[in-house]
Amino acid sequence: MSLRNRQVILVRRPEGALRTEDFLIVATELSEELAPGEILVRHLFVSVDPYQRLLAGGGETFTRPVAIGEPMPGWAVGEVVASRDPKLFPGDKVVTYLGWQLFGICRGAEVRKVSGRLPLPAYLGVAGMPGVTAFLGIFDIGRPRAGETVAVSAAAGAVGGIAGQLARMHACHVVGIAGGAAKCRHIVEDLGFAAAVDYKAAEFPAELRRATPEGIDVYFDSVGGAVLEAVLPLLNPFARIVLCGHIATYDRPESPLPKGWEFLLSRRVRLQGFIVGDRLDRWPEALARLERWAADGKLRYKETVVEGLENAPRALGDLLHGKSLGKLLVAL
Amino acid sequence: MSLRNRQVILVRRPEGALRTEDFLIVATELSEELAPGEILVRHLFVSVDPYQRLLAGGGETFTRPVAIGEPMPGWAVGEVVASRDPKLFPGDKVVTYLGWQLFGICRGAEVRKVSGRLPLPAYLGVAGMPGVTAFLGIFDIGRPRAGETVAVSAAAGAVGGIAGQLARMHACHVVGIAGGAAKCRHIVEDLGFAAAVDYKAAEFPAELRRATPEGIDVYFDSVGGAVLEAVLPLLNPFARIVLCGHIATYDRPESPLPKGWEFLLSRRVRLQGFIVGDRLDRWPEALARLERWAADGKLRYKETVVEGLENAPRALGDLLHGKSLGKLLVAL
Repeated sequence: MSLRNRQVILVRRPEGALRTEDFLIVATELSEELAPGEILVRHLFVSVDPYQRLLAGGGETFTRPVAIGEPMPGWAVGEVVASRDPKLFPGDKVVTYLGWQLFGICRGAEVRKVSGRLPLPAYLGVAGMPGVTAFLGIFDIGRPRAGETVAVSAAAGAVGGIAGQLARMHACHVVGIAGGAAKCRHIVEDLGFAAAVDYKAAEFPAELRRATPEGIDVYFDSVGGAVLEAVLPLLNPFARIVLCGHIATYDRPESPLPKGWEFLLSRRVRLQGFIVGDRLDRWPEALARLERWAADGKLRYKETVVEGLENAPRALGDLLHGKSLGKLLVAL
Repeated sequence: MSLRNRQVILVRRPEGALRTEDFLIVATELSEELAPGEILVRHLFVSVDPYQRLLAGGGETFTRPVAIGEPMPGWAVGEVVASRDPKLFPGDKVVTYLGWQLFGICRGAEVRKVSGRLPLPAYLGVAGMPGVTAFLGIFDIGRPRAGETVAVSAAAGAVGGIAGQLARMHACHVVGIAGGAAKCRHIVEDLGFAAAVDYKAAEFPAELRRATPEGIDVYFDSVGGAVLEAVLPLLNPFARIVLCGHIATYDRPESPLPKGWEFLLSRRVRLQGFIVGDRLDRWPEALARLERWAADGKLRYKETVVEGLENAPRALGDLLHGKSLGKLLVAL
């Protein structure tokens, strides 16, 4: 009792742009015997998402990479064919993480049964992982306030298209960034963004500036690279970057991002630019504690003292080149 | 009735390393006449802090740069000589922001009277702006938990030395980064850090890795540049970077930071690496709302559908190069 299955197998690590030769389509046999709690699913649609390139590449990412010889993991939507899970029945439509294959077996508890209120493909997009990414990225991480400007990269894509609409529903001024006139038209006409900017245009940084006359408060970044560099100078004070991907570098390691940028994503790092004068309300408590701890000997400190006002400029130059210890000051 | 004052004036924008010729020491006259509420202060110590290089450079920073011909702004500690502020009296010791000059006049409300419990220089360091920077950077921004590893750059400096000690008081494993054996010894022997690593050593990245066997949870970054690049691969999941400065680039624009990195600081940007699977608890709410909004037509979405499992690899390659619109999927 076995089914004829087909799977997409990774046969070598892609280098640079993905090639179809990096994969092989193989015919396999799938035993139809189910353990208690398991279901057999026939996939109707399998999902193609940028992070799969990272899995294939084998470098560090937020999850285990695909091993050579393994089928490509990924989201899919399908129909239950057989079930030993008492909550699921043949014909039920479910979202699985069984990857690029025609059939798969997993525990019923590992799938999400869908209502079918939307066409099935939507459960891989707007009502699936990409939609949730947009939702949580905007509402939990970026948290734009009404009236703020939100810029969205890959805005004609599955995540960006939803992220921008969610921000617009939240009364933000939303500017999408995408490649080419057709996508830019789609963003404005179909998705209702306030503006779209073509990153392939020669004058892209200037056009992005024109489209964001009040600066950018939230940047939803799926691409990194040159688009990120164009956004940075336009950020407003206390802006937030939702670092959700860096597609521009997934198969082009020559991109201008800093070495190690990928770790900010894979390790979910929070980076916060911090200027102490912004929190004057916190100074009294900090100063009181610091003075007491220093007086009690709990905090040690050293000073480098230079004599004479005329030596202040040289002292500053030396400070930047590491030639002082502890606090540097000039005695008058 | 005027005093003979002396001031350090910026006479040209420094390019690259600061030169003493960028400044001029000038003798000026200061009228001793005070308006109601004003005080006349004789400075005893003026402060030298890295951010002053940014002010002199004239580029964007968190505050107004120094104009050519202006005295260098900065912190100072001094003694009240005359006062028309009813709360301050001659002889009182105060911290001012009157910069690099012997005497200055300001409103009494603009200075901080100090207790004198510590030697006066301490009010420019541990019990002044650098101390508060360390305190708020550690406790409000980095928020290390007991047992976590905290790495501190410029650890023999005014801010880093305090930041590391505060983290240690909070039961963290604290590793300092500084240049040269003398500073590294100071950090461990005098300040009590668990370890110190010399960024000038040939094997610096490997030594930093050895000193942080459990990874880095909080990085207090005052320097940027190559030190930051060595830290990034060592960050643990959900690490926090307190971006407090990038001294390595203040007068060396050839540094390997990404173009625009300075804006992350000057605009106090929060950047958060975000992986949607980390918040499975939030998925049900997100999915329910997204499905309803999509069904009601409030959210629009497009799909690009490719036919046939064998075309999935090519579809992924195309996706990374912007050749699809909306959600990309493969129909089986």
